[in-house]
Amino acid sequence: MKCALVRNSYGKSAVRLSKVSRNGQTHTIQEYCVEIELEGDFDKSYTAGDNSTIVATDSMKNTVYILAAENEFTCPEQFGKLLAKHFVSQYAQVDAATIRITEAIWQRIEHEGRPHEHAFVGGSNERRKTKVSLDSSQLKVESAIEALSVLKTTNSGFVGFVRDKYTTLPETTDRVFATNIDCTWTYCDSECDFNQTYALVREEILRTFCNHNSLGVQQTLQAMGEAVLVACPHILEIDFTMPNQHRIPFDLSRFNMENRNEIFVTTSEPFGVIKGRIRRTNAQQDQRQLTAGACNS
Amino acid sequence: MKCALVRNSYGKSAVRLSKVSRNGQTHTIQEYCVEIELEGDFDKSYTAGDNSTIVATDSMKNTVYILAAENEFTCPEQFGKLLAKHFVSQYAQVDAATIRITEAIWQRIEHEGRPHEHAFVGGSNERRKTKVSLDSSQLKVESAIEALSVLKTTNSGFVGFVRDKYTTLPETTDRVFATNIDCTWTYCDSECDFNQTYALVREEILRTFCNHNSLGVQQTLQAMGEAVLVACPHILEIDFTMPNQHRIPFDLSRFNMENRNEIFVTTSEPFGVIKGRIRRTNAQQDQRQLTAGACNS
Amino acid sequence: MKCALVRNSYGKSAVRLSKVSRNGQTHTIQEYCVEIELEGDFDKSYTAGDNSTIVATDSMKNTVYILAAENEFTCPEQFGKLLAKHFVSQYAQVDAATIRITEAIWQRIEHEGRPHEHAFVGGSNERRKTKVSLDSSQLKVESAIEALSVLKTTNSGFVGFVRDKYTTLPETTDRVFATNIDCTWTYCDSECDFNQTYALVREEILRTFCNHNSLGVQQTLQAMGEAVLVACPHILEIDFTMPNQHRIPFDLSRFNMENRNEIFVTTSEPFGVIKGRIRRTNAQQDQRQLTAGACNS
Amino acid sequence: MKCALVRNSYGKSAVRLSKVSRNGQTHTIQEYCVEIELEGDFDKSYTAGDNSTIVATDSMKNTVYILAAENEFTCPEQFGKLLAKHFVSQYAQVDAATIRITEAIWQRIEHEGRPHEHAFVGGSNERRKTKVSLDSSQLKVESAIEALSVLKTTNSGFVGFVRDKYTTLPETTDRVFATNIDCTWTYCDSECDFNQTYALVREEILRTFCNHNSLGVQQTLQAMGEAVLVACPHILEIDFTMPNQHRIPFDLSRFNMENRNEIFVTTSEPFGVIKGRIRRTNAQQDQRQLTAGACNS
Repeated sequence: MKCALVRNSYGKSAVRLSKVSRNGQTHTIQEYCVEIELEGDFDKSYTAGDNSTIVATDSMKNTVYILAAENEFTCPEQFGKLLAKHFVSQYAQVDAATIRITEAIWQRIEHEGRPHEHAFVGGSNERRKTKVSLDSSQLKVESAIEALSVLKTTNSGFVGFVRDKYTTLPETTDRVFATNIDCTWTYCDSECDFNQTYALVREEILRTFCNHNSLGVQQTLQAMGEAVLVACPHILEIDFTMPNQHRIPFDLSRFNMENRNEIFVTTSEPFGVIKGRIRRTNAQQDQRQLTAGACNS
Repeated sequence: MKCALVRNSYGKSAVRLSKVSRNGQTHTIQEYCVEIELEGDFDKSYTAGDNSTIVATDSMKNTVYILAAENEFTCPEQFGKLLAKHFVSQYAQVDAATIRITEAIWQRIEHEGRPHEHAFVGGSNERRKTKVSLDSSQLKVESAIEALSVLKTTNSGFVGFVRDKYTTLPETTDRVFATNIDCTWTYCDSECDFNQTYALVREEILRTFCNHNSLGVQQTLQAMGEAVLVACPHILEIDFTMPNQHRIPFDLSRFNMENRNEIFVTTSEPFGVIKGRIRRTNAQQDQRQLTAGACNS
Repeated sequence: MKCALVRNSYGKSAVRLSKVSRNGQTHTIQEYCVEIELEGDFDKSYTAGDNSTIVATDSMKNTVYILAAENEFTCPEQFGKLLAKHFVSQYAQVDAATIRITEAIWQRIEHEGRPHEHAFVGGSNERRKTKVSLDSSQLKVESAIEALSVLKTTNSGFVGFVRDKYTTLPETTDRVFATNIDCTWTYCDSECDFNQTYALVREEILRTFCNHNSLGVQQTLQAMGEAVLVACPHILEIDFTMPNQHRIPFDLSRFNMENRNEIFVTTSEPFGVIKGRIRRTNAQQDQRQLTAGACNS
Repeated sequence: MKCALVRNSYGKSAVRLSKVSRNGQTHTIQEYCVEIELEGDFDKSYTAGDNSTIVATDSMKNTVYILAAENEFTCPEQFGKLLAKHFVSQYAQVDAATIRITEAIWQRIEHEGRPHEHAFVGGSNERRKTKVSLDSSQLKVESAIEALSVLKTTNSGFVGFVRDKYTTLPETTDRVFATNIDCTWTYCDSECDFNQTYALVREEILRTFCNHNSLGVQQTLQAMGEAVLVACPHILEIDFTMPNQHRIPFDLSRFNMENRNEIFVTTSEPFGVIKGRIRRTNAQQDQRQLTAGACNS
């Protein structure tokens, strides 16, 4: 029998960086968790234990802190591009680098009516993420919001679905809609204002969630995607994953009480998951071209 | 050999309740995770498998939803008191009930310049908690904030500590101070405005964190405790646990670069933990008396 | 601007099933966590809120329990195939079904020198998983072991890697090697004995880990993959992800003590990650053909 | 208003140590997570920012590794005693030290019919723990098993409990009994063979779980406690916390199918919790005396 190594990569994960920048009295804090993954000419480390092309993952970790000190950047996308370019240009044996960065969100504490200069509050499960991929032909930037947790108490229903012998769920025209939104978008332009786009995406999602009279999680997902693409010209497409965090009415009728749609069992499992990808349609022709320039919206 | 059951209790944990209250167009959502623990005449279930005094934990769960439907309440402390009184009064064999409630924090989404009527954003690790204990002689209410995550980039130092052969930590007059505050306070008055006190505690902690020129986590803890006791007349004492979430300077000098106190390694472990309890001093004489009335501040 | 839904799917996650099977006095327990994901003609639920083709995820949940009751199966792969075939055949609008199952591992308690008939011990983070994908043209079965945690205290080194200005890691010929193996394999035959293959994969990985004189995680990964492919004729290829859970020597020389390679700091982050895919090479010609029959080893 | 610091302590948590000991070809690995908490004359660090009595928590961390290198020990209890004695004797300002250690369980891999000399498998959620407390008057050793996960498919029922208007749970004479046992025991003798006692406790718990015909979790808890006290003469008392990890029968009758007690919904929440403490009774007279000598069993 013969067998072969047909794919390989390696890198460093969970490199945690805090960078403090001081502009006079006003400080900023950037807290990133960085993951580096390299592909290239590493086969002989697998097949012969020859590590001569291997950049130690410990050196990758050092590089994160060194590049953070040497460069100014205002968002994870910029820092990801710096790192990806470094690894591909520094080492001939590296064909491709993928950098994933998760940013912990720190917000200035409101103090005496204005945002404090150097004190922050954090602790949200919501995360801002990016993935920067660079190989010989292409630089690709994706960004994401993870675990944006929202809930609304009305303007959400679910009727008209398939009823067969496996169905016990009643129809409802007024249910609690709670979800933990994950969304990932692809830029058509790797040089745009990433912070502005990030803020716009988040704002459009929340605005749509508030306004939308939901006939199903699927329909609300579509509305969010369309709102984002209208508002953000630099985005080619956006993917959503929306778990349906069910609030199940507790049946009070078993206790001779009236069900008034007020008392719910909060559940973690099982949960529905709805996924969808919305794309700018006149931008479908040639994605490689698009990533070099702006989307033709 | 003889042995005996010298202590026992049982109950239900992780009873998850969402209650929607509607005041015209304006809705509120209360999301509680409830734990019930009962003590009483249950020995024979342990020693003889005789369950005749046992209230099934499944019935406790039902009771949470039934009492939530039958009663109005605006905070976990009130609901905890309702539950504790129910179990002690309903069942002769129950001597004491302890109710622990964790509230998930949902904030109204800012929409068109004002808080939305029925749409909320959540997802924080920060939690509001309460513990209500009732036995024949006493009702005791404790409340807590868990995992209030804060960070400041200056006005924090640590010097003058013990230096001996086990010491390698350098002194610093300017370090990042990050912590995840847990604090628990005891009310001297079980009938006060719990929501107001909760908001005041949180505000005083954040205000102190912003203003305090910290010579150590211990000193900042003390300052927070004093500020809370000054602001909140219904609180007898407050306990803090403050993990020191170290940001360790990455040593750039190994790479012939200057250390400018900007680049840090974010660490999860190991971590320092600082604890302290601050008490209203003219209130120390007789705690039992105090819990019946207001603190003599 | 125009935009379109270019991809969608939905389903139910975290459907948790325990099935007890009784063969006289001897009982078995199967504990599965099931995820169902369907693709098909669902676009109008996204674009128009028309749910007429939507099988409620609650009905999918019911189906898991109903099919578990109606059928006998001895492994998650079999149950995954049952579920996938059900959804694709039952609903004309369903084009493809993907079933993911995670099995919690329960082992019989050793009691009086033999495995007990109905009492089990569990609690491992290690999981057995499967993913069954069915569309009109193809049934594909993948299986996996997740989080197989192993450590060895010698026969592991790391030398000869790139040294440059980013490098501080010393070479070592004797280090602790600890990892949490994730591996996923693809079957060339969807009708084989999945339990036997699972047991063989696990055995070959552990055997190789014990025997291999490791010159790097990469080399050990390759050796494991080759051992699995030699032992398991029904496997086409196997993917490994191996985090390097570093034990970093604590530098005692700072305290005038000798470093004897005994005292280590256990770390969670950052961590190296090594990935590789090993494939049966004379099986590369036509994967579609292979999945219908046995691999030509 | 006056207020005072009425209690304080501080220390280091999550100090993670791996120690490799080599006896010829046979290696052992001890992996401990250590927590140190000191009480003493630290008030002025809180009230005045005067850190002159403060041993830096970073120095505590160093001490863990230094003492691990300087000493031989075969169990966490021994290492905890070494650490507690160190801090109390080394620093005049330290009145009391509490050391908590959690051990990760690594088992030798079975290889060619025998336990391997230096390769181990881990990954269990089950943990061995200890808490050693030392103050001027007393050394106290507690040990614990955390998250011992067991399940049995029969010989468990629950009948005869209170039925009232809050009750919907049906009685059952044959249910699945699953729990995640936490137990903590107090030694009457701080010099005994801790490894032997640990092994005996675990064995007696599993043996009882297998044999006991359970009329309720409470009764099984009591049986386990009695079995442990009979088998282990060095234990004064043992505390159990046993969550009832419910497997709820899925009601197939809604689908015109027979309920045969085979198909269950595995649930995480809500869950019952049963607690109890069993004590050696002729050892109750004077606990202080007992902790100095052996229990009079």
